[in-house]
Amino acid sequence: MIGIIGGTGPQGKGLAYRLAVAGVDVLVGSRSVEKGQSVAAELTQILRDSDTGAGLGAHVKGTRNGDLPERSEMLLVAVPYDGLADTLKAMADNVSDQIVMSAVNRLGFAGGPHALPVPAGSAAQEVAQILPQAKVVTAFNNVSAVHLFDPDHAFDEDVLVCGDDADAVSQVTTLVNRLKGLRGVASGPLVHAATIEAMTAVVISINKLHKINSGVRIVGL
Amino acid sequence: MIGIIGGTGPQGKGLAYRLAVAGVDVLVGSRSVEKGQSVAAELTQILRDSDTGAGLGAHVKGTRNGDLPERSEMLLVAVPYDGLADTLKAMADNVSDQIVMSAVNRLGFAGGPHALPVPAGSAAQEVAQILPQAKVVTAFNNVSAVHLFDPDHAFDEDVLVCGDDADAVSQVTTLVNRLKGLRGVASGPLVHAATIEAMTAVVISINKLHKINSGVRIVGL
Repeated sequence: MIGIIGGTGPQGKGLAYRLAVAGVDVLVGSRSVEKGQSVAAELTQILRDSDTGAGLGAHVKGTRNGDLPERSEMLLVAVPYDGLADTLKAMADNVSDQIVMSAVNRLGFAGGPHALPVPAGSAAQEVAQILPQAKVVTAFNNVSAVHLFDPDHAFDEDVLVCGDDADAVSQVTTLVNRLKGLRGVASGPLVHAATIEAMTAVVISINKLHKINSGVRIVGL
Repeated sequence: MIGIIGGTGPQGKGLAYRLAVAGVDVLVGSRSVEKGQSVAAELTQILRDSDTGAGLGAHVKGTRNGDLPERSEMLLVAVPYDGLADTLKAMADNVSDQIVMSAVNRLGFAGGPHALPVPAGSAAQEVAQILPQAKVVTAFNNVSAVHLFDPDHAFDEDVLVCGDDADAVSQVTTLVNRLKGLRGVASGPLVHAATIEAMTAVVISINKLHKINSGVRIVGL
């Protein structure tokens, strides 16, 4: 079971959808139980209505963010940066030495998309500071929320996974590889999180210039 | 004519080679005229010995770095970061409103490859500070020097070109597109230089983990 903190936002909902399509059980977290359950019901209906049969084996449930640590093997953080610290601090005592994936990017958009500084160095490093017992890795930072939730979009891109626990990185790249068209690439220690997060601003700039939704791929691998 | 500041180092020499193979005239800059001329002669011999005939139309000459601004349409900076400021300040008065490509990355390697902070924000932004009249763009930051100088390596990757002058970005992506297997991708303003430079540390981390020489590609474009 993957618990998605902020699973009702665009990125979280898209990730919940793709994980479920891959047959992974998902717990959609939200500030309210009702919102989490409502999005879980919506996703379940989408999977049921799909004529491919994808995701029919996966369970999608919803609950409040604070319930996720105890009910999930891995956590995935997909809240906007501005709500990150408060959301995680409220649940920190319940987080064990489990894997926590951070898809959070701190970006500004005034004058064009750009990365904003984070005191901890990066959003993922801030997650690691607030949840010192967790094994924190980056994941899905550069993947378009629009593409995630579009069943007709065929991915062909990489997910850069960095973290200080090599086994956690390996488990997450294995998880990513279950999602069709996405490839998890072990990318070194968590110190690279700032770069991987900031690449999202570069990708969005490229999108605006070229009127596309792009992604990143590592060639030669 | 492209003048390569630091054209005798691994990255500069590799870029001189690839540009010449594409038929672009190159001026190899060095601290000494003799070293620049010696590397230019070496490259000319390599092109002459190649049985593909590639690069036979291009002229490769060498000189001291300080001579490059007046003798080149575009400049390409490929010196190590530690020599950057001194090298450019010594020639700043001769640089006009020409295009200056920066391939410079400030990286540290103790404890694993990582980006080091640059007071100006990035090496390219430091170039822009020292040469305020120039149109500065990033180019070739993530491309392996080993691959550049290996005639048997077939590239299939992107060169992220960011800069504040859209016409300069366009001219440089056009130049990059002349190099076989490389694609120039306009990536927005110079504020993204820090991320593009730091991606080199991520790429080197990936190389070490997976024992490859990798590159970056933007998919969906």
